[in-house]
Amino acid sequence: MTLAKPLPEYLVRRYHGWKATTFAENKGWYKRLAEDGQRPRAMVISCCDSRVHVTSIFGADQGEFFIHRNIANLVPPYAPDSDHHGTSAAVEYAVRTLRVNHLIVMGHSGCGGVQGCYDMCSGDAPELEETSSFVGRWMDILRPGFEKLEAGDRQDRLTALEKTSVLISIENLMGFPFVREAVEDGTLTLHGVWNDIADGSLESYDPETDRFVAI
Amino acid sequence: MTLAKPLPEYLVRRYHGWKATTFAENKGWYKRLAEDGQRPRAMVISCCDSRVHVTSIFGADQGEFFIHRNIANLVPPYAPDSDHHGTSAAVEYAVRTLRVNHLIVMGHSGCGGVQGCYDMCSGDAPELEETSSFVGRWMDILRPGFEKLEAGDRQDRLTALEKTSVLISIENLMGFPFVREAVEDGTLTLHGVWNDIADGSLESYDPETDRFVAI
Amino acid sequence: MTLAKPLPEYLVRRYHGWKATTFAENKGWYKRLAEDGQRPRAMVISCCDSRVHVTSIFGADQGEFFIHRNIANLVPPYAPDSDHHGTSAAVEYAVRTLRVNHLIVMGHSGCGGVQGCYDMCSGDAPELEETSSFVGRWMDILRPGFEKLEAGDRQDRLTALEKTSVLISIENLMGFPFVREAVEDGTLTLHGVWNDIADGSLESYDPETDRFVAI
Amino acid sequence: MTLAKPLPEYLVRRYHGWKATTFAENKGWYKRLAEDGQRPRAMVISCCDSRVHVTSIFGADQGEFFIHRNIANLVPPYAPDSDHHGTSAAVEYAVRTLRVNHLIVMGHSGCGGVQGCYDMCSGDAPELEETSSFVGRWMDILRPGFEKLEAGDRQDRLTALEKTSVLISIENLMGFPFVREAVEDGTLTLHGVWNDIADGSLESYDPETDRFVAI
Repeated sequence: MTLAKPLPEYLVRRYHGWKATTFAENKGWYKRLAEDGQRPRAMVISCCDSRVHVTSIFGADQGEFFIHRNIANLVPPYAPDSDHHGTSAAVEYAVRTLRVNHLIVMGHSGCGGVQGCYDMCSGDAPELEETSSFVGRWMDILRPGFEKLEAGDRQDRLTALEKTSVLISIENLMGFPFVREAVEDGTLTLHGVWNDIADGSLESYDPETDRFVAI
Repeated sequence: MTLAKPLPEYLVRRYHGWKATTFAENKGWYKRLAEDGQRPRAMVISCCDSRVHVTSIFGADQGEFFIHRNIANLVPPYAPDSDHHGTSAAVEYAVRTLRVNHLIVMGHSGCGGVQGCYDMCSGDAPELEETSSFVGRWMDILRPGFEKLEAGDRQDRLTALEKTSVLISIENLMGFPFVREAVEDGTLTLHGVWNDIADGSLESYDPETDRFVAI
Repeated sequence: MTLAKPLPEYLVRRYHGWKATTFAENKGWYKRLAEDGQRPRAMVISCCDSRVHVTSIFGADQGEFFIHRNIANLVPPYAPDSDHHGTSAAVEYAVRTLRVNHLIVMGHSGCGGVQGCYDMCSGDAPELEETSSFVGRWMDILRPGFEKLEAGDRQDRLTALEKTSVLISIENLMGFPFVREAVEDGTLTLHGVWNDIADGSLESYDPETDRFVAI
Repeated sequence: MTLAKPLPEYLVRRYHGWKATTFAENKGWYKRLAEDGQRPRAMVISCCDSRVHVTSIFGADQGEFFIHRNIANLVPPYAPDSDHHGTSAAVEYAVRTLRVNHLIVMGHSGCGGVQGCYDMCSGDAPELEETSSFVGRWMDILRPGFEKLEAGDRQDRLTALEKTSVLISIENLMGFPFVREAVEDGTLTLHGVWNDIADGSLESYDPETDRFVAI
């Protein structure tokens, strides 16, 4: 395979900086993480979006969060059909092997995937409707959410759909037998949050009022 | 849905700390990221493992990397079959919509997913062979790599398989028409790296020698 | 001295978060605490174990509890022999200088120190019997408790020994003339509790029945 | 033993509140901590003073820090003489059994123990010089620090002595063979910090300049 290239120079330089500082100062911790294996307390499912860093927001260091990131922080419905299911595999590993105690689904403002879904469902993005569109087929997971949106202006509806992507993921998670069992046992709790990138606010889903409220 | 719970208190406190410091000090940047949208230079595909933080290793800040994380940093083969393909959707979005210029696949030492694959292919993990095992079916992507491993001791072969997971992902990426096209146009370069958690070293795949070499 | 290192980066970030939130919001209180000095109502003696946080369990804030933490929440017998006695110094300061009104000794389930004592007294931990073992010599304080354990299975006897560590500490406390005097004057009361980490229960020693009972 | 009393009612009420909220929301985590045992990354040695809460300052939750608290955060010199050494036992357990990677000694402003040492060494506290004074004999550990104080006003000298208590502890720690070995192996790093209660600032000892600098 002759197509892979060396890393860009600026990343090589930064890596060497990290190695000589952060790594050097925490050498013992990295060694121990390597020897003892990971034991994260929580799994986080968040978006690939470059503007969303849960480790920064929650002051987490190496070893704290098992993190799966995909477009629009979606969990597909439970489907043990022998296909490749990357998200379901990550959830299975976190819950059954690592036995995490919290599973946090985090959505965010300005989500490109959610916007694509919105446009597709509105008939404005025919290219996403094609069989060959991976983004379109992935965002199909969120379609049931679009259909239940209340009337309103586009921006409000987009925000509502971003929050719905969190809730649909949590509903789908409950369809996985091992997730449901751990939740019912009290060994796992599910959490849904939404981050506004512009003003840094964080809203948490409150089941009592069925709304997202600022924390 | 009555099952979601409020965030654990310690994360709420840490979030408020982040909001009052990191966020407050970079408010203008977050606002601009929100208004202008993201424009990341690179996509990274790495493992969910809590011990692997590419943003830390590469000193990246909000807005720099579009990051997809799944078990064992795998990219499945191109399969436009209308199923939900989270990894393929992320790659499609990064390459076609965001037009990233680098796509870095990063493997790591002590990868639990790779070890599961190794044991499954060795006949030592029958539970992973079941149709209903999401981890098993996901790790099937790496099976062809197991079959080509050279003889040797278990630890050497596991490390070799971790590096193979990077190379298989890059090979599979080249099967996506839009990836191949961008690579051939010279607008996208692919990179394969492997991180040793214990000693912090980083090896980069060198196509000249067909080996991973320390950077 | 060239061996001390800067604090790990993640703790620096979290500290700045605390400073900008918890501290900023309670500035007046911290200032007054600094100017007036502390005036805690209670002293707590608990274990160093990272899973035991009396401030969390009792909702205590800065200024409420004077806290001494050592292995297995032990108080050694009164011995005014001019050696360094950290625990006795803490008790003396709390009772004579701060004149606390409550002195709470808190044990807990799964105590590593108590288990070490149990194994040592059972002849299963020869390394703890060496003169040079600080943990072994410290746990000698609990030896008389081991000898009085009722027959039973290992787990029951370990739990009994954890509770005994609380009672031996209270007995030893009564050997300190200034403690006895304050107790007899009615200005100080002693309390013994034991926390089960797994189920969050708290048991309090009841002198009437000579047992620990759930509160 | 008829002298122990039931817990004060206000603490019982607060405990029940904690059980119904914090504990209930993190049940899985507590269960797992109980089953798997603790695996703290750091040990902290801080003062018993009720105004100093390292878990709050560093946003730490159950399981993160192994904490020893004594008067003036002192570590006595290495003395394997078969006496009861609570501090040395805590250090031994943290370094040899738990294999913590960071050991943080934290001093603070307005430390009553340090002030007692200052007055005693100045000849102003004859009661602390008595053989029977546990506080006096404990603060003897800091005597060598008093003798090296530069001239200046009382307040500056007290602050200097508080910082010296951190440095003497670190020096004494290096006299423990297992601490020295772990430091030399790079598996353990030592850190010295000092907290100003009034203004919330935190200073970290910088070996390059041999001074405490604000972080």
